[in-house]
Amino acid sequence: MHHNHSDIDMPSEEDVTRISEDTLAGLLARVFARHGTSDHVAKVLAHNMAQAERDGSHSHGVFRMPGYLSTLASGWVDGHAVPVVEDVSPGVVCVDARNGFAQPAHVAAKPLLLRKVHEVGLAMLAIRDSHHFAALWPDVEPYADEQGLVALTFVNSMACVVPHGGRRPLFGTNPIAFAAPREAGPPLVFDLATSAMAHGDVQIAAREGQMLPPDHGVDRNGDPTCDPRAILDGGALLPFGGHKGSALSMMVELLAAALTGGNFSFDFTWDEHPGAQTPRTGQLLILIDPNRRAGANFAQRAEQLLAAMHSAGQQRVPGERRHQLREEAGRMGIPIPASMLNALREFAGE
Amino acid sequence: MHHNHSDIDMPSEEDVTRISEDTLAGLLARVFARHGTSDHVAKVLAHNMAQAERDGSHSHGVFRMPGYLSTLASGWVDGHAVPVVEDVSPGVVCVDARNGFAQPAHVAAKPLLLRKVHEVGLAMLAIRDSHHFAALWPDVEPYADEQGLVALTFVNSMACVVPHGGRRPLFGTNPIAFAAPREAGPPLVFDLATSAMAHGDVQIAAREGQMLPPDHGVDRNGDPTCDPRAILDGGALLPFGGHKGSALSMMVELLAAALTGGNFSFDFTWDEHPGAQTPRTGQLLILIDPNRRAGANFAQRAEQLLAAMHSAGQQRVPGERRHQLREEAGRMGIPIPASMLNALREFAGE
Repeated sequence: MHHNHSDIDMPSEEDVTRISEDTLAGLLARVFARHGTSDHVAKVLAHNMAQAERDGSHSHGVFRMPGYLSTLASGWVDGHAVPVVEDVSPGVVCVDARNGFAQPAHVAAKPLLLRKVHEVGLAMLAIRDSHHFAALWPDVEPYADEQGLVALTFVNSMACVVPHGGRRPLFGTNPIAFAAPREAGPPLVFDLATSAMAHGDVQIAAREGQMLPPDHGVDRNGDPTCDPRAILDGGALLPFGGHKGSALSMMVELLAAALTGGNFSFDFTWDEHPGAQTPRTGQLLILIDPNRRAGANFAQRAEQLLAAMHSAGQQRVPGERRHQLREEAGRMGIPIPASMLNALREFAGE
Repeated sequence: MHHNHSDIDMPSEEDVTRISEDTLAGLLARVFARHGTSDHVAKVLAHNMAQAERDGSHSHGVFRMPGYLSTLASGWVDGHAVPVVEDVSPGVVCVDARNGFAQPAHVAAKPLLLRKVHEVGLAMLAIRDSHHFAALWPDVEPYADEQGLVALTFVNSMACVVPHGGRRPLFGTNPIAFAAPREAGPPLVFDLATSAMAHGDVQIAAREGQMLPPDHGVDRNGDPTCDPRAILDGGALLPFGGHKGSALSMMVELLAAALTGGNFSFDFTWDEHPGAQTPRTGQLLILIDPNRRAGANFAQRAEQLLAAMHSAGQQRVPGERRHQLREEAGRMGIPIPASMLNALREFAGE
């Protein structure tokens, strides 16, 4: 689901075409619209996917298109859903995504949410009955980058992670993403699955015949295994960091599902929708305005922290690599494997 | 600092006296008041410490008293500080703890904070210039238990954790605590340091001559080590869970320090206050009222999640052991080693 930090099928320079973000987003939107989404939903998903590809989040970039098309074809998700935005309280916006994708639900709520955070000092968005199949950082970064806000979001997914001390999968990969503005550069952003690794990385290890480190997964009997094939063959992942990651994953279920009214990761199956790949769950987003009395110099303080992290020897800070690739893509275009570009054009009927 | 999950010097049954929580809290309050705190601060800290001892959080129970007395005697913290509560916006309360302890600052802000969360749907408390030397779960559990709220809090501490990929300590142990109500039992609560282990546990391993697992610490040169003595001798801890725990620790610095106006964990030294042991930093607390439209059945959903965790084979859920010990202490009294009880009475001049 959330294959952050993995770089699947990173194209070699030989067979790569570089195209602009706008050109890619336009092509992707035509693919979505031709396969069962409204033009608006197509545009939102295409923008999201083009961003991920641009920033080197390949596992959530164009690589994801076949999965989107399969899940749309299955009838599992409604590509034409019109989200219903509810103004619940001075600080809270709820959205019923009506079995549509999470990103258009988020877009629909954004103006009201921004009004609330500026009035109240913090605000919360609770999305339910939504499908999140994308990287999570694009949901928080713009708030820090464009609005100077601190943003924190949680999404649950589908049962593939065994709680610490358990034997059967229950939690999703349940990522957490965070963004904070800083004074002299792009925001500090992270996007991390609370599972020990991503399914995509397990698949790569299995393909390459490599064993995994301990404490990453269990086999179909719930026993620990380092064999990626045993994890894929009816086994499951473990949370990252033992009982601590497991507690965080539980928190994500409570925040993204119980609090929003969405499904838990174990609340649904794809049995009646062959080809379905997206989780039908919920998402919680919290925005904080640091430009208040005590936090008024937040962006400068974030800059100091970053300097201290560099000076402590940390080579790469969260979000840094994405911004390097983004800058490169801005100058030279986004590199897309020629075969993938051809496939996308075929999907678009072009 | 935050030695959660460790049980230091768990008393054997032989030399233990069982006393009621009220009796213990009264004794502890007399100790605090005799060593440089106001009666009010003494009462708040004593209640906090008695709770920790009652629930088996021994490393944050009476074990901590010598550290409190040492830091008070050093002049580093103001035991008579009167916190200043600021009503910053409809959803935000700031408190200047005025170089006092974090717990009385929290107590001072609580009525205003509760009013805000009920009006707004969520609310935030930002404490700065505060010393947090206690377990973190007592700061969140009552909101879930008594108010049916979801609570999430972050405290930074003092530079003793090397950021992922770095060589020198920068972050604190930077714990995160979370509490959520459930329908048919005590709240789901966790309190986890974002460091790989607690300093108290390193000390125990060093004393017992045991080596640590990999990825827990570095020596004075910043090189990885499994030797607890090398960590204690000028070395440092690592975050839990590699780059993910490190990212979370960075987030705690940004939320608990940059956002509140408190110190970063690396912003202060004890050089001019020999005997000082408390971090002078900040704390952020977020409360969410789940009793709104979409989350109206939150407590029932939490109950379902708990049942699913048990059914997935998870033997012990976060907070469960504390509640078992609490129940036992309620029936039989809190077990205190006789030698510790004598020491406390001497501290109290009794």
